[in-house]
Amino acid sequence: MKEFNVIEDFFKAKSIQRKDVIIGIGDDGAVTHIPQGQALVTTTDTLISGVHFLPDTPAHAIAQKAMAVNLSDLAAMGAEPAWISLSLSMPEVDETWLEAFSNGLQQHSKYYSVQLIGGDTVKGPLAITITAQGFVPFDQALTRSKAKPGDSLYVTGTLGDAGLGLHIAQKKCVVSNPLNQAFLLNRLNYPTPRLLVGNSLRRIASACIDISDGLIADIKHILNASQCGATIHVDKLPLSPALKESVTYSQAISYALSAGDDYELLFTVSEEQKGHLETTLANANVHATYIGQLNGSAGKLQLRQADKPYEYSAKGYEHF
Amino acid sequence: MKEFNVIEDFFKAKSIQRKDVIIGIGDDGAVTHIPQGQALVTTTDTLISGVHFLPDTPAHAIAQKAMAVNLSDLAAMGAEPAWISLSLSMPEVDETWLEAFSNGLQQHSKYYSVQLIGGDTVKGPLAITITAQGFVPFDQALTRSKAKPGDSLYVTGTLGDAGLGLHIAQKKCVVSNPLNQAFLLNRLNYPTPRLLVGNSLRRIASACIDISDGLIADIKHILNASQCGATIHVDKLPLSPALKESVTYSQAISYALSAGDDYELLFTVSEEQKGHLETTLANANVHATYIGQLNGSAGKLQLRQADKPYEYSAKGYEHF
Repeated sequence: MKEFNVIEDFFKAKSIQRKDVIIGIGDDGAVTHIPQGQALVTTTDTLISGVHFLPDTPAHAIAQKAMAVNLSDLAAMGAEPAWISLSLSMPEVDETWLEAFSNGLQQHSKYYSVQLIGGDTVKGPLAITITAQGFVPFDQALTRSKAKPGDSLYVTGTLGDAGLGLHIAQKKCVVSNPLNQAFLLNRLNYPTPRLLVGNSLRRIASACIDISDGLIADIKHILNASQCGATIHVDKLPLSPALKESVTYSQAISYALSAGDDYELLFTVSEEQKGHLETTLANANVHATYIGQLNGSAGKLQLRQADKPYEYSAKGYEHF
Repeated sequence: MKEFNVIEDFFKAKSIQRKDVIIGIGDDGAVTHIPQGQALVTTTDTLISGVHFLPDTPAHAIAQKAMAVNLSDLAAMGAEPAWISLSLSMPEVDETWLEAFSNGLQQHSKYYSVQLIGGDTVKGPLAITITAQGFVPFDQALTRSKAKPGDSLYVTGTLGDAGLGLHIAQKKCVVSNPLNQAFLLNRLNYPTPRLLVGNSLRRIASACIDISDGLIADIKHILNASQCGATIHVDKLPLSPALKESVTYSQAISYALSAGDDYELLFTVSEEQKGHLETTLANANVHATYIGQLNGSAGKLQLRQADKPYEYSAKGYEHF
């Protein structure tokens, strides 16, 4: 079976049709229109079997995670997603796997109104690269570099769930409550890109990033790009009931600080914008938790618990 | 060493700076501007070590080929290239390799004025996925689907060189003339994206595709998409002196018909546009060769030599 047929048979028919796509799957390239007044936002992420997901992860989850991690990057830029391109490397054409994978992609495509506009299928070890494209109004993109000393630090959702979920999937630990186990595995396999929050934060947040490698690793990107320091109050970190019930408090904090794969947004807001933030989050019916404050000690991160320094040495996910 | 540092240390400093890039490498996504009146063209291709290139291919060539195969797709759409995103999967951080790879990418970036706007580096088997983006004026994109019976069929450059180059690299055959050997290996490792021809063909060609899997395999995409048939005159196929001197005539034809990796453009032109084509190619100082004619036998391809049917059974490159 040839590349042409894989794309045609498993992906093209399941693709949604956006009005801004002039030419989609089936030519040398896709042709699309950007709305006037909008800038293009592009991001690429690769997931490799055995590195970014366990080899026994269901195909449906792999597809949705590959898409979610890219949409999460668009969310962190304040962008609205529009199109994705897929490069799928696989050792052989396994029709059952492809059926489940393309169904997973289709479900997310429909839910987020994102059209698959092209791709490449190649023979090789199982790996998925998605390039996602979206829009943001000119000059409203959220970046890492405009945070200022005095800004408050927030995160969406809860932290650490995917980290414990990974240890459960790897059979490194056992969680007795089956509901908690299901929740934690779900957080690992089906992360939620925080698109609504990201879009709401345009003109409000001074900086924003998504947490993929762990809070400590990712906040450093903001601190370095913005030349700020930060204090995080570990007892303010948002923890899910499932995480708190499954491990000790200090283990939960450790997952929240340095486990990756949460795909929550971490963002900063100036004192003047805090009122605006509260109204906007309330109107959008989404929640974010205050976890600390920025200061002028460029690049330095302090952890505090009940006004004492919190000793902690682990780092975030290291890629090599 | 972390992902952040690989991108920063080896790629960011070498990146050219286009005026339409608002945010490049170093944030969750890149932010770029599309000129008014232009549509966005996007294409993705993956090269895997041991599948698309031999494991001992120099890093410099791998980078330039990965970029060229993507720019070739833009050329086939009549688009002007602007930006690329890179996903680089590699088993370890090898600084010498990365230095050579990023130099190769930089050279092509400068030459084609294409900016690397972002990427992802992951630990895994050596594989390179590039997503290239470019522009084409609204409604001027070249596609596969608008060829008509009676249109003439052309190709740029010469065919089959990369196919023999691959067999030399694989030590499946020996070419005695070292100049010919160098030329053929160069055609394999350093393909030329036919951007100037592609841009010149806007409003002239009725259909266009780049030859990546071999002439026979790729013409079928045009025939299927346009519901046409075609006759190719094998004695009109453009063959390089190096190819003709190195193998028998029938072997040369065989390479030209079904070996992949040439990255020449195959396009169709209506009778009315042939004068326009000749002037345009002459003005751009590029050459294309007439190789046959389209007809109404949907999907059927006939090969003829000196007005007799040419018997030939091999297909193009099969991906699985």
